[in-house]
Amino acid sequence: MKTPIRIAVTGAAGQISYSLLFRLAAGDLLGPEQPIILQLLEIPPVMPVLQGVVMELTDCAFPLLHRVVMTDDPKHAFRDVDYAFLVGARPRGPGMERKDLLRVNAEIFATQGHALDEVANRNVKVLVIGNPANTNALIALSNAPHLSPHNFTAMTLLDHNRGVAILAEKCGVSPAVIHNMTIWGNHSSTQYPDLHYTKIKGQDALSLVDQAWFVEYFIPTVQQRGAEVIRLRGQSSAASGANAAIMQMRAWALGTPEGDWVSMAVPSDGSYGIESGLVFSYPVTCDAEGHIHIVKGLTINDFSRQRLHITESELREERDAVRHLLHRRL
Amino acid sequence: MKTPIRIAVTGAAGQISYSLLFRLAAGDLLGPEQPIILQLLEIPPVMPVLQGVVMELTDCAFPLLHRVVMTDDPKHAFRDVDYAFLVGARPRGPGMERKDLLRVNAEIFATQGHALDEVANRNVKVLVIGNPANTNALIALSNAPHLSPHNFTAMTLLDHNRGVAILAEKCGVSPAVIHNMTIWGNHSSTQYPDLHYTKIKGQDALSLVDQAWFVEYFIPTVQQRGAEVIRLRGQSSAASGANAAIMQMRAWALGTPEGDWVSMAVPSDGSYGIESGLVFSYPVTCDAEGHIHIVKGLTINDFSRQRLHITESELREERDAVRHLLHRRL
Repeated sequence: MKTPIRIAVTGAAGQISYSLLFRLAAGDLLGPEQPIILQLLEIPPVMPVLQGVVMELTDCAFPLLHRVVMTDDPKHAFRDVDYAFLVGARPRGPGMERKDLLRVNAEIFATQGHALDEVANRNVKVLVIGNPANTNALIALSNAPHLSPHNFTAMTLLDHNRGVAILAEKCGVSPAVIHNMTIWGNHSSTQYPDLHYTKIKGQDALSLVDQAWFVEYFIPTVQQRGAEVIRLRGQSSAASGANAAIMQMRAWALGTPEGDWVSMAVPSDGSYGIESGLVFSYPVTCDAEGHIHIVKGLTINDFSRQRLHITESELREERDAVRHLLHRRL
Repeated sequence: MKTPIRIAVTGAAGQISYSLLFRLAAGDLLGPEQPIILQLLEIPPVMPVLQGVVMELTDCAFPLLHRVVMTDDPKHAFRDVDYAFLVGARPRGPGMERKDLLRVNAEIFATQGHALDEVANRNVKVLVIGNPANTNALIALSNAPHLSPHNFTAMTLLDHNRGVAILAEKCGVSPAVIHNMTIWGNHSSTQYPDLHYTKIKGQDALSLVDQAWFVEYFIPTVQQRGAEVIRLRGQSSAASGANAAIMQMRAWALGTPEGDWVSMAVPSDGSYGIESGLVFSYPVTCDAEGHIHIVKGLTINDFSRQRLHITESELREERDAVRHLLHRRL
C-alpha cells in the first residue's frame, strides 16, 4: 500500500465540498491505488454539519480513505498537505457591496496563505475555488512568501468545460473530440471564452460555427452559465464545480495530454501583455513533474485583444481593492 | 468505443440523485471504458430543477456520458435500460400515517413495475433505494410479471457499509480488512446487523469486541445511523446512499470477491425460515454473470432467530398494507 497523501479541503461542510469529498475518497483524483487523508477546515458554527458529512464519509467504508481530520484551525488543516482545495469563501450578504465582499474574503485567504506558508508540504498544489477565485489566489500566494507563486492556481476549468459542453452540443459531437478550448482572464462574467484555437476532430471550430454564434451566443452563454444554473436549480453549481476542481488538480498532478491544453488561472508572467503577477486564466500545459507552462505564441487578433483587456482591467480593480493585504512584491 | 448502456434514475432531481448522477457519469459504476446513456425520471413540478442538474452534468464534459434523457413518463425513462436506480419516493408529509405513506409509494412503484415490465431490457437490474425500499421493490416486481423477481433488489448495502464503518472504527482497522458483515431483513430500524460471521483480518469479530458492545451499541447504532446523520447534517444521508447504490449495483453486475459477501434485499426463497416472496436482506454472493445467490447454511442462534422474526414481521405488515397492489402470486 502506498503512503497516504494529505488533501486539505476548506469550506468542507458546504455544497461544493459535499460533491467533492466523496469523489476524492472514491479515488477520482489520483486513482484506486493511492490512499488519502482528508484534512477538513470549517468555521465553528457549521462544525456539527461537518460531523454529519464525515459520518457519511465513514459510512461509505472507502478502502482508500485512511483518515479524516476536522478542524477550524488552518494550521492544523494544512499541515503537510500535498493538495489544498480552497473551496470556502464568504458569499455576498444583504447590503454588502462587491468591495466589502472582496475585502472579507481577502482576510480569509490572507490567513490561509500564511498557514499554508508555514505548514504545508513545499510542493503543495493549492487550487482556489472560492470566489472571487483569481484574486483570492493572489492574496493567498502573496501571503505565502516561502512558497513559490507557482504553488497556487485558481479554477477556470469549470468555465473551460462549460465552453466544451456548449460547443459539443452545438456541433452534435462528444466533448471528448474537442481540444484546445481556452478561457482567458477572470473567473467572472468578464472572462473571455475563446474558440480561435479550438479544434473539433482536428478541424477549426470557428470554421464549423458562424462568427455571430460565437460572439452573440457562445461567449455570453459561457460567461452567464453559473447564473443560469442558479435560475434552474435554485442553487449554485456544486457538482460540476467539484468535478472541474478534481479535473484541474488531476491535470496539474498527472499532466495534460499531448497536443491539448487546459485553462487555469495562474500568476501571469507578462504573457500576452497581461500585467505580471495578476492571477489570470491562460491556456496551459502541465508536465508529469507537476509544472505548469503557459502556452506561448498564440496569435491574438483585435477582437480577442479587446476582451483580454476587459477581463485584465477587472482583475486590476480587484487587486487594487485588496492591495493592503498583498505582502509579497509581485 | 463500447456500445453505451442505458441507466435509468428516478427522483433524478433529488438529493441522492445529485450525488449519484455525477459518479455514474464519471464511470464509477462500470469503469472508464463503458459509455452510458442516463434516462432520468422526475415529476413535472421539479422538471426545471432537473434541467439545472442536467446542465451541470453537461458542463462536466464527461467523455463517457453519451446522452441524457429527461422525462416524466416511466415508459420513456425505462425503455431498453440495463440498470434502473429507483431513488424517487414520496417522503412522509404532515399528518400522514405510516400506512398512507406505504400506500402512496406503493402506487408509484406499481406504475414503475408495469413500465419496467413493458419496456426495460429483459436482463435489467433494478435497485430500489426509495423508502420503504423492501416493500417498494416487492410491489414493483409483483407488477412486472414478464420479468423475473430476480431482476429486483432493494438497497441494504448502506446499512452493511455503516456496520463495517462502525466496527472498523471500534477496532482501529481499515474497512478493507473487514469481511462477511451481514444485514438481515428490512431497510428500517428493525434490520438486524449481524456480526456472527464477520471476520477482521481473518479473526472472528465477536472474539474482538464484547457481547455487550455488539448488543447494546453496535446493533442500535447501525439501526439508528440514518437518524443520526439527519440530526447532524439537518438533511438525510445522500452521498453515502448514492455510494452504496453504486457499490450494490457494481457487486451485482461484476460479482463479489471470493470469500466475501454483501448484503442485499432480494426475494426470499424461504431461506432461514423467512416467508417466501418477501423482499428480505440476506448475505449474498454475485457471480460474474449477474446472478445473486443467497448464502446458505449459516448457523442462526436464538438471539439472531429472534431478531430475524422481528424484521420479518415488519415486512409482513408492510406487505399486508399494500396487498391490493400485489398482482403476481408470490
